[in-house]
Amino acid sequence: MLFARVTLVGCGLIGGSFAMALRAAGEVGEIVGFDRNPVVAARAVDLGIADRCEARLEDAVIDADLVLLAVPVARTAEVLAAIAPRLRADAIVTDVGSTKQSVIAVARTALGAAIARFVPGHPIAGREIHGPGAALVDLFRGRRVLLTPLPENDEDVVVRVEAAWIACGARVDRIDAAAHDAVLSAVSHLPHLLAYALVAQIAEAPDADLKFSLSGGGFRDFTRIAASSPEMWRDVAIANRDALLKDLDAYRSRLDVLRQWVADRDAESLEAMFVCASTARTRLADPR
Amino acid sequence: MLFARVTLVGCGLIGGSFAMALRAAGEVGEIVGFDRNPVVAARAVDLGIADRCEARLEDAVIDADLVLLAVPVARTAEVLAAIAPRLRADAIVTDVGSTKQSVIAVARTALGAAIARFVPGHPIAGREIHGPGAALVDLFRGRRVLLTPLPENDEDVVVRVEAAWIACGARVDRIDAAAHDAVLSAVSHLPHLLAYALVAQIAEAPDADLKFSLSGGGFRDFTRIAASSPEMWRDVAIANRDALLKDLDAYRSRLDVLRQWVADRDAESLEAMFVCASTARTRLADPR
Repeated sequence: MLFARVTLVGCGLIGGSFAMALRAAGEVGEIVGFDRNPVVAARAVDLGIADRCEARLEDAVIDADLVLLAVPVARTAEVLAAIAPRLRADAIVTDVGSTKQSVIAVARTALGAAIARFVPGHPIAGREIHGPGAALVDLFRGRRVLLTPLPENDEDVVVRVEAAWIACGARVDRIDAAAHDAVLSAVSHLPHLLAYALVAQIAEAPDADLKFSLSGGGFRDFTRIAASSPEMWRDVAIANRDALLKDLDAYRSRLDVLRQWVADRDAESLEAMFVCASTARTRLADPR
Repeated sequence: MLFARVTLVGCGLIGGSFAMALRAAGEVGEIVGFDRNPVVAARAVDLGIADRCEARLEDAVIDADLVLLAVPVARTAEVLAAIAPRLRADAIVTDVGSTKQSVIAVARTALGAAIARFVPGHPIAGREIHGPGAALVDLFRGRRVLLTPLPENDEDVVVRVEAAWIACGARVDRIDAAAHDAVLSAVSHLPHLLAYALVAQIAEAPDADLKFSLSGGGFRDFTRIAASSPEMWRDVAIANRDALLKDLDAYRSRLDVLRQWVADRDAESLEAMFVCASTARTRLADPR
């Protein structure tokens, strides 16, 4: 068994799925949960995600071998500050935040020397529904988990976090935190912003009901991520601000060009861009 | 049986699926195909979509009760001009184009008095793969088909086209052509442009391979429509130019506002927009 006691800080979709998978793999003794929302905490116990939940965050991490932070990234600082004095000397802490540089910065401040046992992580998996009821035992099966280890991390600490994710069925890769944030900005954070913006535009239109009623499967695919947690993505947009602004500016410039092509009825330029995109997208493996 | 002879002009995904569904419903005697690409035409016969294909478009429509145009919208004018002199006096013509005002304008010119038997149509169904091999007998089952009948259409002509789509399993609605184009611009044409633009941006990046390799399910959903036929969507963007430019401009303004919120770390405004979008999207039925 990898861990005698694991503490989940945040018992939603990601924390819950991690707990279910680790338990199914037989790699954990006790799972202690904490959630700032007591209804969510109680539900996590009802669902068998956590063996018990503590009402106070500080109490939840006592004697934990591994603490998994699965909270919106803007809450990382306060959570780490609260738990730092109560962590066992050899406790390992990891997180699942969609941005890594911002998390690392606040972790260094909050944890001091204990930063050596903090391994930043990010599973590339999610659903557009959230909460413990959305958790799935196989959410991470075959999915990538990215770790952005710190210079202070001992190799054995990183390996133990890797082992936890491998036990959940994931493929684990290590990547530099800045590279992580730049890549995820382009393939995840920007698309979420674009999808939210399109749905908001239609929702605010006077004929919103007609528009939604005549939307097809393509629209549903394109906008599925716009059902994601507003709080989580609000935090991500701000935490990865610099990379996101860069990608957003490039995208706006691209839309300016595209607009001109449409205005000019420039079929050739439009088709060339569509062919480039279509070729690249077709090459990309698609599980559906 | 609704039609003794149906002619497909264009034997790809949409034309092929229509033929398969109509045949399965027992509502057609013979199906004659034409495709400008002889390989596609031959494949449509091999797949049992068409009973035979004619090498010349003019020959394919001889003695047809119903002619279905399933070609990129920019080809509508030349197709109608070519077939007009060969249509039987009581032949009904319909199309499947994603834009309706542009199709109607060229149809009036090409068909003259025969416009009375042209019923503009648009099935809200598609796949990101195309060609006769992508055709499905149940592509239209439970999906909406929008007809934009003309003042010149006799009611019985419109009813026969409706009956064909109902036989394919679709729900048929009638809508004004301008309203159709405005709605579809917002929920289909603009999203396609946005998805193509995002994939092109990533494909042209120096680290494109890394980015694609670290993209998750949300990215795949968001960009699935970017694998669609470049020729078809090039034509749609130009045919529905005015509505699309209006929506694109509104979207660009929205991104400008969004950019400012990210730059200002305005969590409250970001979250309010995300909540608006997430609420609307969650309310939308999702077949998955």
